[in-house]
Amino acid sequence: MEYIAGGVTAPKGFKAGGVHCGIRKNKSKKDLALIVSDVMCSAAAVYTKNLVKGAPLYVTMENLKDGKAKAVICNSGNANTCNANGIEIAKGMCDLVAGLGVCESSDVIVASTGVIGQPLSLEPMKNAIGDLYKSISYEGSLSACEAIMTTDTVVKEAAVEFEIMGKVARIGGIAKGSGMIHPNMATMLVFITSDVAISPNMLAVAVKEDVKRTFNMISVDGDTSTNDMLSVMANGLCGNEEIKEDGEAFKAFKKALNMVTSKLCRMIAKDGEGATKLLECKVSGAKTEEDARVVAKSVITSSLFKAAMFGADANWGRVLCAIGYSGADVDVTKVDVAFKSAAGEIMVCSSGAGVDFDEDKAKKILLESEIEIIIGLNDGSGYATAWGCDLTYDYVKINGDYRT
Amino acid sequence: MEYIAGGVTAPKGFKAGGVHCGIRKNKSKKDLALIVSDVMCSAAAVYTKNLVKGAPLYVTMENLKDGKAKAVICNSGNANTCNANGIEIAKGMCDLVAGLGVCESSDVIVASTGVIGQPLSLEPMKNAIGDLYKSISYEGSLSACEAIMTTDTVVKEAAVEFEIMGKVARIGGIAKGSGMIHPNMATMLVFITSDVAISPNMLAVAVKEDVKRTFNMISVDGDTSTNDMLSVMANGLCGNEEIKEDGEAFKAFKKALNMVTSKLCRMIAKDGEGATKLLECKVSGAKTEEDARVVAKSVITSSLFKAAMFGADANWGRVLCAIGYSGADVDVTKVDVAFKSAAGEIMVCSSGAGVDFDEDKAKKILLESEIEIIIGLNDGSGYATAWGCDLTYDYVKINGDYRT
Repeated sequence: MEYIAGGVTAPKGFKAGGVHCGIRKNKSKKDLALIVSDVMCSAAAVYTKNLVKGAPLYVTMENLKDGKAKAVICNSGNANTCNANGIEIAKGMCDLVAGLGVCESSDVIVASTGVIGQPLSLEPMKNAIGDLYKSISYEGSLSACEAIMTTDTVVKEAAVEFEIMGKVARIGGIAKGSGMIHPNMATMLVFITSDVAISPNMLAVAVKEDVKRTFNMISVDGDTSTNDMLSVMANGLCGNEEIKEDGEAFKAFKKALNMVTSKLCRMIAKDGEGATKLLECKVSGAKTEEDARVVAKSVITSSLFKAAMFGADANWGRVLCAIGYSGADVDVTKVDVAFKSAAGEIMVCSSGAGVDFDEDKAKKILLESEIEIIIGLNDGSGYATAWGCDLTYDYVKINGDYRT
Repeated sequence: MEYIAGGVTAPKGFKAGGVHCGIRKNKSKKDLALIVSDVMCSAAAVYTKNLVKGAPLYVTMENLKDGKAKAVICNSGNANTCNANGIEIAKGMCDLVAGLGVCESSDVIVASTGVIGQPLSLEPMKNAIGDLYKSISYEGSLSACEAIMTTDTVVKEAAVEFEIMGKVARIGGIAKGSGMIHPNMATMLVFITSDVAISPNMLAVAVKEDVKRTFNMISVDGDTSTNDMLSVMANGLCGNEEIKEDGEAFKAFKKALNMVTSKLCRMIAKDGEGATKLLECKVSGAKTEEDARVVAKSVITSSLFKAAMFGADANWGRVLCAIGYSGADVDVTKVDVAFKSAAGEIMVCSSGAGVDFDEDKAKKILLESEIEIIIGLNDGSGYATAWGCDLTYDYVKINGDYRT
């Protein structure tokens, strides 16, 4: 099981691409992406729990009721959320794909990302869909990934190759997301493809289990988006016998899926709006896995802690504080905290109280761009990891005037 | 019922003051405050729900078990939290007050605020307590208020005069708090005094009811402090018959208390770390008061919305998003949103969808220093107000290197 190049087009039989169609004013920025499988796929998705949901999510939910899909269409620059005719536009986007002869309109996964509450016209997409379809290719993942970016500063692709039932299989994914990142159930936009044969039910089980430990464990700013969605399409072209139940093959699939999703999570957290540092909080010794998750997420979500990390300030009191208000069942007198990076590791708190430590060494460790916060709760065997980023001047700048 | 000058020394029979004792290096910054009543008081307090609690809170809880207190001692510059000998130091602070002949050690409310996890020595306080006691006066509220400040940029005092059972009575308060402000149950440090006669039980009821609508409704950064505490001491010197049950007098007391606490709340939110704007979110038409509270607090807590307000950007999609993920029972298709300030009022969202509005007018409104966000949920009669502030470069700067 190893990482390979390519994103959604790493698995067999998936074409992808992206173009600038005109939703965005900046002509050098692609704003419409298309992913198409050569054959029908098992498909599953998870969605934001925000009560305010983008119209495309409702259309996708309807289309995935049969657990089947063949294509993804997604625009950036406009979230198609809180618009009077949002459902009509989202269905219109599916119809555009159907008009290409790719599949029925009801076999399309549709998504939008960008500003909320701005009217979205189908016109530019209608004009561009023909050229977009011509442009998609078996190497087009990067182009599709570029077309779904908003404030992202880097493309986010990951793919894994692994063996399943004697066949060589692949899972690949692309993701976008930089602000409004605090997923609850699903996240941002993530499109995953695979050439594994797996039933829609088992695919749904694998996705739900995975997001609990991956996308639900990242936070940039505590704001859960209205348009969060993660979808997986598996087309079976690697040639394995369809996975229909738990077992070796399902475990291998889940492990490969987790390799792709956890890599995308790290990329999203590291590219958080304005971020200069990736924060990876590893909690062990919790009473339950859920307690570990709650603690890890509370720490990487704390604005005070995030600002301290921006300043490379080993202010472990902020960590203790965030553990204390997390709501997890923790004995605060047992808590150990250490900071770790490429520059070394340093213990700063033991049994809930401060220890003497070398401030210069701590500073050196925290000046690196990837920081691990290692928390031992010493009260059980639950563990979890959460990913976040520092809070910087640039986060404020980016969001002080996002719409213009 | 009207606001008057003075804070904790506005009510009859309370002396207060503050000195620099040496916990802080900066000699021009006072760091030890004392409030003393001429006679024994009914007393009540509420405390942070953070599992990590400052040692002084445990000592105060113990001392207030009998509902009586006569003095408050509070240092700034060190939170006395996560220290091995914290309880000993906090008790030692009470003993210093007892040593002055003011009252028993168990009649003292003790508090600390500042950095977490740094050893605190009793020595500088022991050396200064005599001079501090000499310096307290019936006009000393401001001096005490200065001595409890940390990153606060303005002093926070409020007092109200009102009639109760034919007597002229007063309630006054001082508060500190600028960062780590997201109270849950109590908040920051708030010391309130009154010359009303009221039983400890009724005082506790009044305080619990009030904080639900005041201090629990403010947020600067979503971080619930380890040292939050609000205490009230009522000494009865205004001469009214002791309030022992609900009725006219209790209602008047609660109303006056709310005038003091809501004013302090506005001051704390407006002086949030790095803040340039006070945000006051008024929610009406909620199914329940609790739903209104949840929605109001979610909006003023959203980092994205806070950054948009810093940029005077009328990005109402951020408001809808924060309502949607708040967890409150809301019909998002009924939501109206308007922005209001000294420069006017503008409707930006109606029935959950955007309305055409004058961007220049919106900008002008949002450039003011006090902004109201008016949300109509049109689904019931619950209402609530929450107070917050914008998210700015200076918040990041202040917290990037807090300890030095």
